[in-house]
Amino acid sequence: MSQLPFYRGFSNSTLSEKDIEHLEMLRRRCSGNAILASTLAASGHPGGSLSTIPLLLSIYAGSDVTPENPWKKERDRVILSHGHVSPGTYSVLGEMGFFPLEDMILEFREAGSRYAGHVELDVPGVEWSTGNLGQGLSAGTASALACQLSGIPNRTFVLMGDGEQQKGQISEARRFAVKYGLNNLIAIVDYNHLQIGGKIEQIMPQNIAQGYSADGWNVLEVDGKNFSALYEAIAKAYHNKVENPKAPTLILAQTTMGYGVSFIENNHEYHGKPLSKDQAKKAMQELSLSENVDEWIARKEKHTIKTNFPHIKHTYPSVELSEPRLYLDKDKLDNRTAYGNALLDLAKANNQGKPKVLACTCDLTISVKMDSFAKSFPQHFLECGIQEHHSSTMAGRLSIEDFVVFFSTFGVFGVAETYNQMRLNTYNRSNLKLVCTHIGLNVGEDGPTHQSIDYIGLFTSLFQLRISLPADPNQTDRIIRKVATLPGNDFVGMGRARSPIILKETGEPFFGADYEYTPGKADWIRRGKQGTFIATGPMVWVALQAHEQLKKEGIDVAVLNMASLSPLDSQAIQEAGNNGPIITVEDHHIQTGLGSLVANVLIGNRQSVPFEKMGVTHYHTSGTPEKLYAKQGLTADNLAFKMKGFLKQ
Amino acid sequence: MSQLPFYRGFSNSTLSEKDIEHLEMLRRRCSGNAILASTLAASGHPGGSLSTIPLLLSIYAGSDVTPENPWKKERDRVILSHGHVSPGTYSVLGEMGFFPLEDMILEFREAGSRYAGHVELDVPGVEWSTGNLGQGLSAGTASALACQLSGIPNRTFVLMGDGEQQKGQISEARRFAVKYGLNNLIAIVDYNHLQIGGKIEQIMPQNIAQGYSADGWNVLEVDGKNFSALYEAIAKAYHNKVENPKAPTLILAQTTMGYGVSFIENNHEYHGKPLSKDQAKKAMQELSLSENVDEWIARKEKHTIKTNFPHIKHTYPSVELSEPRLYLDKDKLDNRTAYGNALLDLAKANNQGKPKVLACTCDLTISVKMDSFAKSFPQHFLECGIQEHHSSTMAGRLSIEDFVVFFSTFGVFGVAETYNQMRLNTYNRSNLKLVCTHIGLNVGEDGPTHQSIDYIGLFTSLFQLRISLPADPNQTDRIIRKVATLPGNDFVGMGRARSPIILKETGEPFFGADYEYTPGKADWIRRGKQGTFIATGPMVWVALQAHEQLKKEGIDVAVLNMASLSPLDSQAIQEAGNNGPIITVEDHHIQTGLGSLVANVLIGNRQSVPFEKMGVTHYHTSGTPEKLYAKQGLTADNLAFKMKGFLKQ
Repeated sequence: MSQLPFYRGFSNSTLSEKDIEHLEMLRRRCSGNAILASTLAASGHPGGSLSTIPLLLSIYAGSDVTPENPWKKERDRVILSHGHVSPGTYSVLGEMGFFPLEDMILEFREAGSRYAGHVELDVPGVEWSTGNLGQGLSAGTASALACQLSGIPNRTFVLMGDGEQQKGQISEARRFAVKYGLNNLIAIVDYNHLQIGGKIEQIMPQNIAQGYSADGWNVLEVDGKNFSALYEAIAKAYHNKVENPKAPTLILAQTTMGYGVSFIENNHEYHGKPLSKDQAKKAMQELSLSENVDEWIARKEKHTIKTNFPHIKHTYPSVELSEPRLYLDKDKLDNRTAYGNALLDLAKANNQGKPKVLACTCDLTISVKMDSFAKSFPQHFLECGIQEHHSSTMAGRLSIEDFVVFFSTFGVFGVAETYNQMRLNTYNRSNLKLVCTHIGLNVGEDGPTHQSIDYIGLFTSLFQLRISLPADPNQTDRIIRKVATLPGNDFVGMGRARSPIILKETGEPFFGADYEYTPGKADWIRRGKQGTFIATGPMVWVALQAHEQLKKEGIDVAVLNMASLSPLDSQAIQEAGNNGPIITVEDHHIQTGLGSLVANVLIGNRQSVPFEKMGVTHYHTSGTPEKLYAKQGLTADNLAFKMKGFLKQ
Repeated sequence: MSQLPFYRGFSNSTLSEKDIEHLEMLRRRCSGNAILASTLAASGHPGGSLSTIPLLLSIYAGSDVTPENPWKKERDRVILSHGHVSPGTYSVLGEMGFFPLEDMILEFREAGSRYAGHVELDVPGVEWSTGNLGQGLSAGTASALACQLSGIPNRTFVLMGDGEQQKGQISEARRFAVKYGLNNLIAIVDYNHLQIGGKIEQIMPQNIAQGYSADGWNVLEVDGKNFSALYEAIAKAYHNKVENPKAPTLILAQTTMGYGVSFIENNHEYHGKPLSKDQAKKAMQELSLSENVDEWIARKEKHTIKTNFPHIKHTYPSVELSEPRLYLDKDKLDNRTAYGNALLDLAKANNQGKPKVLACTCDLTISVKMDSFAKSFPQHFLECGIQEHHSSTMAGRLSIEDFVVFFSTFGVFGVAETYNQMRLNTYNRSNLKLVCTHIGLNVGEDGPTHQSIDYIGLFTSLFQLRISLPADPNQTDRIIRKVATLPGNDFVGMGRARSPIILKETGEPFFGADYEYTPGKADWIRRGKQGTFIATGPMVWVALQAHEQLKKEGIDVAVLNMASLSPLDSQAIQEAGNNGPIITVEDHHIQTGLGSLVANVLIGNRQSVPFEKMGVTHYHTSGTPEKLYAKQGLTADNLAFKMKGFLKQ
């Protein structure tokens, strides 16, 4: 194990001969360990690891990051975007003392081990789980921004592959970084000119330097195998001694895939293929290392997985709740406005000193009702442009930097377009509050390409994500305030149109001043003994109207509001299952939403009741929500009719 | 109605005074109609429409596209990417005679009308349904490429907004266009410097011209309100009289939002807000038009929707099927290889003249087993680089240009990352064959960020998409050959690892020479009277092992292979529901896959049987599939144990 950094803060003018010697020795050792780990696993990415190792060592040699407290707030953040060079990264981190190297070499890519094929958050020293290319820079912009907002003077490094520069999300992140003046952000591209399929220039030609320049970055081109040159470039970027000191800097480092092992150098086949045992032995010789490959193989055979890093729990700020707002029908409100108001209240109560509540959107400030927030707290509001992929990852990362982050856009953009970014956010145990407006047919006149009818179907496929759909502005208010206090990820979905206030039988707001939202708890809007409408979102109102109609005919049917879709209130569904027929109703694809969730609970309970799902059966045209609902049978009349059909049976 | 084009093929040197006068008159008329339509609908995007209209008119004035046969193969393709300027586009198309203008004005954005808020494929003259920004250029590259592959000398125009240039997907499309030498592609950006939220330079600064230049495009900057200047620029691009005649050309047209109506000019509030009745009247005056707004409003009140364009059915080539391949256990094959072999066979049988079968991937040629195809048919193989968003849209569009298009990548990239692109492909009724490998825990050592366990959950939320999961290499072979012959979209998913051959009780391959795949039909691998395992993909083999174990104990349980997930064989499930306990088993998220589909069928039938879902309960670590399956209880032992538990009850 080596002691790094050599000199924290890149404050020397150059590296000494001795430093270079030391770094060269480390490079050889780390390269050997990366080869060992992947050869022992018979799987992994040695080629890129060997070209990235000099870059990693150069960063860690001067950065403010320590194994003793890898998550301290005042640290330089080092995010690895091309997560497949995990053996190289783990070798460097192990060398620095973040964990025992030996365990890593023996456990890499084994079932049950945290040393996965792509770098994982839970491994000490890793800042963000990556592997899906093109997301690291977005995560890095969030860290850099977080440091600026929190007055932390540290730097964020983002190491990337050259192939992944093809991903469009990177160009989005580049622009965001320039707009927000993230001069504490240093990107380093491992430019070995090879990707899995061959030469980058053949697979997908690209002028990386010009692309960054066009977007306003400083670009430093450097020999990525020369530690002195790397040191000087990093020091310049670190201290903003660059052409535009207010802009972020790219270091484009010319490297060699498989560097230091002659027979795999510049061979793209070793991008993702480990060396054989004999090749590994030869590599040790070339690297002047004394590691005995056979001995390691023998040890591995006897080894059982012992590494069990605890799951990282990111910090989450405590949030002051101001007085909830109570809306009446005369307010003629949509849920979006109630959201915007609650968000403003939260900021007023929490952002007077260091901000706690941040809001971001993608060119939809007014539509998602963030305009009041933006006016009152311009420094805490992020207008990300029409760049949803970047924004989702950025917001996700930002939410683990000690902020409560609300990210809002239309349903189609926040659900369908960025599902994979959200998947990786949740996998990184982010605390993001994704609030999407304009969901369902409720989007109205914007038409079918904007009909987000898959938010339950998609998001129930993710872990570590709560899903809530408010039934009216009062419940919206309470859901927003609640999720702001909860660590973890929340999706809150709402339509565009005005939403009537759900009332008790007494005529008071159902979600009154005394109501508190609890994820996993459904609301019995009306009790009834002959059957149950289970509804969510804008359909709760429709179901309530059906209930009233049936009541006039002497039929007594319950209305259950399933505002929390995940976790699901299985007990309430069971209760409904003991109460006669069930009709589920939702502004969502009929096969993959609430109805399906309820069906699964019922079948699990072996509750065989008359059951029908009502929902969206096909994309519809433009039109007012009322007309579109009518065309798909989502009306009180039809609900009442269907229920009566069941009761006649 | 006006007669366009003035001169097909942009072959004159300049526009005459008379032409300009005519175009100016048309501009005023189209602008008036765009305002009328949106004011009558009380909804829509007039601002951008008015800035785009001169560009649209300039394109159509010389393009080879006619209302008589809008889908003829030999035509110039005009794709509108910023679909929200629909009133402007519809006004121009109506003016050209594609449909009665009057209907459009009265029906725009009304429920039941095809004149939706964002341009729709079914409206004659529209080439691609858009509205989710950033996808049009990808679609355009496909058309340009298709023309090149088919020897069609026509051009493809892609009109885009300036705000949407922020979308990363556009940078991916730019590179693709240059790599494939698409000098028959002309992009025109409506550069009015405003997006919904305000000035582009404030929302998200970007140097559009430099960005395209850096990627190798010709860039022509032009006054977008000057018809002569526009004509000259388009003529240059059309005839490749540009700096690099082998590259595509961008025309960056400086325009004015709300052009021609003084009180909305350069006002971003009218991006998405219609003019009031009084404003519309004033606008008619400014545009020197005699339209009577009150009269139109009165007509609209009495109007009922009458436009009912038929859904477009794109052409689909007829495919020759060569002899299927039969695999035996000694072949030790994975499904991917069977896919690659079938693809090669299809190409050999169909690509001798004009190619019919195309294949594309994102830097994963060997992993997805397209390497044999790529070697034998390099001209029909598209290496798209690590650019999945672009590739999905491009492949989708390509599939309606008279090709059978196979697009392959890993599950996480082809499902989660590009779900929204696929959503819009299916909405455009594409014929794409999306074949994803490395799905499920079966991805093995690549680890959790690469575990695609949501392909059923996500894709069952889409319409017009079949979902198939082969159980072994023989079924893979037959599924691939079958879907190649079927118009429409197919998802075929498979893991990475070797797959044993499923055998009949007689020892012959279950999917033998006589087997033909039928979507919507499940396979009874084994019949049995005491219960049923319903399995899919690699779990069929596991269920079969459980069946064998139980058989030895004298327990007679059926194995049902649900290779077709959509359409689903509800009848087979019903049959299983009459056959005792059911255990579903899948390499997929336990809540949103096969098990949930089966639960929904059973509850619909009121079949109350002992029922258990087995599947993936959390992302796992790296490891071999066998080890990962074991850790999640997906073993024959555990299946047998669970079934016995039910039978004891």
